[in-house]
Amino acid sequence: MKNLLAVDWGSSTLRGARIDAGGKVRAQRSFERGILSVAPGEFPSVFDACFGDWMDADTFCLMSGMVGSKQGWLEAPYCSCPAGFDEVAAGLAWVDPGRVAIVPGLSCEHDGPPGVAGLQSIPDVMRGEETQILGALQLLGLDQGLVVLPGTHSKWARVKAGRVESFSTFMTGEFFALLRQHSILSRTLPAGDAGFDAVAFEQGVALALRGESLLHSAFGVRTLSLFERLPAAALSSHLSGLLIGEELRGRSWQGAAEVIIVGAEALSLRYQCALALQSVPAQRLGPEATWAGLWAIANRNFPD
Amino acid sequence: MKNLLAVDWGSSTLRGARIDAGGKVRAQRSFERGILSVAPGEFPSVFDACFGDWMDADTFCLMSGMVGSKQGWLEAPYCSCPAGFDEVAAGLAWVDPGRVAIVPGLSCEHDGPPGVAGLQSIPDVMRGEETQILGALQLLGLDQGLVVLPGTHSKWARVKAGRVESFSTFMTGEFFALLRQHSILSRTLPAGDAGFDAVAFEQGVALALRGESLLHSAFGVRTLSLFERLPAAALSSHLSGLLIGEELRGRSWQGAAEVIIVGAEALSLRYQCALALQSVPAQRLGPEATWAGLWAIANRNFPD
Repeated sequence: MKNLLAVDWGSSTLRGARIDAGGKVRAQRSFERGILSVAPGEFPSVFDACFGDWMDADTFCLMSGMVGSKQGWLEAPYCSCPAGFDEVAAGLAWVDPGRVAIVPGLSCEHDGPPGVAGLQSIPDVMRGEETQILGALQLLGLDQGLVVLPGTHSKWARVKAGRVESFSTFMTGEFFALLRQHSILSRTLPAGDAGFDAVAFEQGVALALRGESLLHSAFGVRTLSLFERLPAAALSSHLSGLLIGEELRGRSWQGAAEVIIVGAEALSLRYQCALALQSVPAQRLGPEATWAGLWAIANRNFPD
Repeated sequence: MKNLLAVDWGSSTLRGARIDAGGKVRAQRSFERGILSVAPGEFPSVFDACFGDWMDADTFCLMSGMVGSKQGWLEAPYCSCPAGFDEVAAGLAWVDPGRVAIVPGLSCEHDGPPGVAGLQSIPDVMRGEETQILGALQLLGLDQGLVVLPGTHSKWARVKAGRVESFSTFMTGEFFALLRQHSILSRTLPAGDAGFDAVAFEQGVALALRGESLLHSAFGVRTLSLFERLPAAALSSHLSGLLIGEELRGRSWQGAAEVIIVGAEALSLRYQCALALQSVPAQRLGPEATWAGLWAIANRNFPD
């Protein structure tokens, strides 16, 4: 294969990596030009401004993330689970046929509510995470595993025989931001980054794992402050523990020897800590998973 | 006893009732002058403007709600549970001794997180609801029961032998508003009141009762819309069902033959519907519970 320009174009960030014919990442760039900042019709010009100099005759480009959504450059219809590298590679949306393409997201179905007519199943979706999940397993030399990608909308995915069997989205990061910025807790929580308080975090995780409803325990952040049971600097960590613990509460570890965490370091460490409270081992990977995933998909589509 | 001016002064609303010496409500008034709209020092003038003409020589005044908080007219320290009419009546904060008083709120303690050092218990608080709870039971001729007051911060209280033994706060109404107004769902949910869709509501309740995490099921509101599995007009009812179902999920009905719902009619009916899905009978009471509670407390403090 020739060189690859691997692009991760999400809602708020645009990142790219130049990968040589041997699969080695040679350079990386990052821009605050997520798709929410790009007007319809302006995708080609933003792309050229950011990566035009890398797109020589010997380079292909593969993009993943929200760039393939209805609000993106070109819609890449969701690929149904189970789906692995082959299914995803077969579903590329071609911006410039043979040269520039977008990786499709995945969809799956969850069981609908029991005993109530109408909703037989409820869909779930991801865009960009499929590339990270498959790339992470490739880097680890695995063809199965339980993978979590923490974030605004965390994803939990089960992979078997190299294909994502099913996954679930959790609005954990978004709930944290909503409660911090817009709820009654915004008056209680100190502004800015108060740092990480491991004890307050673990207390929050333990409460959530006990089955305490988040609707109730979140109010505790306020009363713990009112009654001065937790210092102001610890409240944010406690809330973070309540939320991450709630995300873990419903997960089943059956058959998973460990959890693979793919994401930014600080947040991934919190998940690793929360999992350790349940004696579940975890290993962490960073953005290299995205590049590995795009590289593997490219190899199926841009052979020599 | 003389006449009573009963006042329910909450965060966003100020309501008052003129109750005659026989306990009959003669007139009611309501103002958009909750304590959040009143500057420190202006409580007496707002009170006079709204109710001055009712405060003759033969009238006492008793107030409940956030007016007794630090941000209110005069702080009435919390009364610890268990607490009934006698404890609350003994804890009045006197604005005008012998003539105008504020009812204290209640506090209780919940078990802290298991297996983690530090937090032995977590406090919970209410202000105003204690009066409604005790008033509701008085109206029903009961001295025990399980009472819920749905709202921005719902309260569940267990009463035994005429005293509130314990209670729990759920930020259900606030979460609903946060998700509707500030989350990614705000793009999906139609603006304004879409009306009530009973089937979509019950589907939401059933999902929550199954133990589905709210962090996950809330994202379903988005995907159900994306995939056109629910009409736009039904989404808000579905989200309401997810939240009320989550509030009910953790409740234990042990020993409660029924639930007493005290609140506004439309919201109370939703709770009654959700409880019926669990075969839990419920009866409903409205604002008359507040007046009955204040009247009973007044009778202990303003005897002839």
